[in-house]
Amino acid sequence: MSIVVVGTVAFDSIEAPWGRVERVIGGSATYFALAASCFTPVKLVAVVGRDFGGEYRSILLEKDIDLEGLVIDGSGKTFYWEGRYGEDPNDRENIVTELNVFERFRPELPPRYRASRWLFLGNMDPDIQASVLDQAEGRPFVGCDTQSFWIERKLASLRRVLTRIDILFVNDREARELSGQCNLVRAAKAILEMGPRTLVIKKGEHGAFLFTNEFRFFAPAYPLQEVIDPTGAGDSFAGGFMGYLANASSFDERHLRRAMLYGTVTGSFACESFSVERLRSITEARIAARFGELVDFVRIDLD
Amino acid sequence: MSIVVVGTVAFDSIEAPWGRVERVIGGSATYFALAASCFTPVKLVAVVGRDFGGEYRSILLEKDIDLEGLVIDGSGKTFYWEGRYGEDPNDRENIVTELNVFERFRPELPPRYRASRWLFLGNMDPDIQASVLDQAEGRPFVGCDTQSFWIERKLASLRRVLTRIDILFVNDREARELSGQCNLVRAAKAILEMGPRTLVIKKGEHGAFLFTNEFRFFAPAYPLQEVIDPTGAGDSFAGGFMGYLANASSFDERHLRRAMLYGTVTGSFACESFSVERLRSITEARIAARFGELVDFVRIDLD
Repeated sequence: MSIVVVGTVAFDSIEAPWGRVERVIGGSATYFALAASCFTPVKLVAVVGRDFGGEYRSILLEKDIDLEGLVIDGSGKTFYWEGRYGEDPNDRENIVTELNVFERFRPELPPRYRASRWLFLGNMDPDIQASVLDQAEGRPFVGCDTQSFWIERKLASLRRVLTRIDILFVNDREARELSGQCNLVRAAKAILEMGPRTLVIKKGEHGAFLFTNEFRFFAPAYPLQEVIDPTGAGDSFAGGFMGYLANASSFDERHLRRAMLYGTVTGSFACESFSVERLRSITEARIAARFGELVDFVRIDLD
Repeated sequence: MSIVVVGTVAFDSIEAPWGRVERVIGGSATYFALAASCFTPVKLVAVVGRDFGGEYRSILLEKDIDLEGLVIDGSGKTFYWEGRYGEDPNDRENIVTELNVFERFRPELPPRYRASRWLFLGNMDPDIQASVLDQAEGRPFVGCDTQSFWIERKLASLRRVLTRIDILFVNDREARELSGQCNLVRAAKAILEMGPRTLVIKKGEHGAFLFTNEFRFFAPAYPLQEVIDPTGAGDSFAGGFMGYLANASSFDERHLRRAMLYGTVTGSFACESFSVERLRSITEARIAARFGELVDFVRIDLD
């Protein structure tokens, strides 16, 4: 079961106390696709500019990611982001965001993509997310990301999108903002009432919650000894999560619980290098090993 | 198997946006004892002043807590603390701390207490914690709490205590301070090298880690919809944790994992009312129900 991801492919420059990288590949669709491709075939929809050379393309191709939906807009440059991390990897400062060709991008699903049963909408203008949903044929399982920027500026549009999706991925701050509730259990209740039947609240190093109207689940973060670059960890989480479900072709409780751990695993790999270096090199065996460690991490032997 | 707790019995005045209480019972030994008494008999060592009336004493007696070690020092008043919480229960402001009779207190284990196999040292001057250890007969299992105040002022004394105990309970900030490591996995490694064979790092609403040289475990926080007053949650965690182990008379991996969940449960009850109201009224059935919810919260069905 393949999954379609619509989002950004970007160049990132990242500074941290332990190093700096310039114009490395990043973007929500990139991280999502590389993580999801560990589980299932991925079809990507995004735009890049004239500066996006074959060496970057091959990073995606080496994971067999379908690039028919990757538009090259020769009129401009690729989305560019520059950020800086402090000693504490949770402190991130945005220095530069240049939308470039992404600003005019109106994503179109190639005809081959339209009947896909699994779809992920990266963080984007909710009106554009809606236009992608309009193009899907049948009723796919839809995962969706958003952020404070849209909660603050386009809440009505976002609320309409929320009625059309299956899983919303947000972090704890976004969940509080979207719901107006400080307590996350109450926030989850309020957000589920807005439409999505499943809600994932990511808390970074503090793990992630999954809420539905039927059950709730908590996944601890994988205990990393060193976090190099958390950029893309959230999209990598969503990629592992959705990729696992798409491959299992299931959305039941048992698979959702496991998807939380697979998302945690791919998210943890994303943190262990700048850009996508570590994600590119992970193997099925390494994923299985970390999955096992996480299961053991919370294991209780009942009588 | 009974457990001895040495700590404070205090009066607290607590202000929060949703209410205020004046001179209610508090203190590390109080919270620990009430939580531990859900699992095993508790013997308490602490000091109170002439203002500690029978109505407070009966709060401890109704849980059959042995008060032979509760010294009444008629020369002064009981330890008094005043604090204020903000909308976010993690924001706590200390307003008044009056040590009163606790300042001159040199705890003595009554002879009947000295052969106890289980001992908990509440947060106190590490030299006083050491003097209590000197009084114990045989080699009890010892749990110990501390805080930044002692890490900053009496590190050498604290380091000596750490070589004599079995479990250290600290929060994430204290673990970072004690180890000089920002990353908690590294912090845990460094602290285990200081002596304790088991380390619990509490992260409040983000759950708690347990580290030993053999395994590690993570307990999610119990997902409360409403936190009224987190005062004493850490001591209540330690009380549930140590009380369960003492009753099981075991310190093996299987029991340590379960102890983490029992500590989480008693800690969660402590947050649900001002002072010890909720802790006083919990039943075995309620504890078992929350324990089951926590197990379910992280449950993965393996193939």
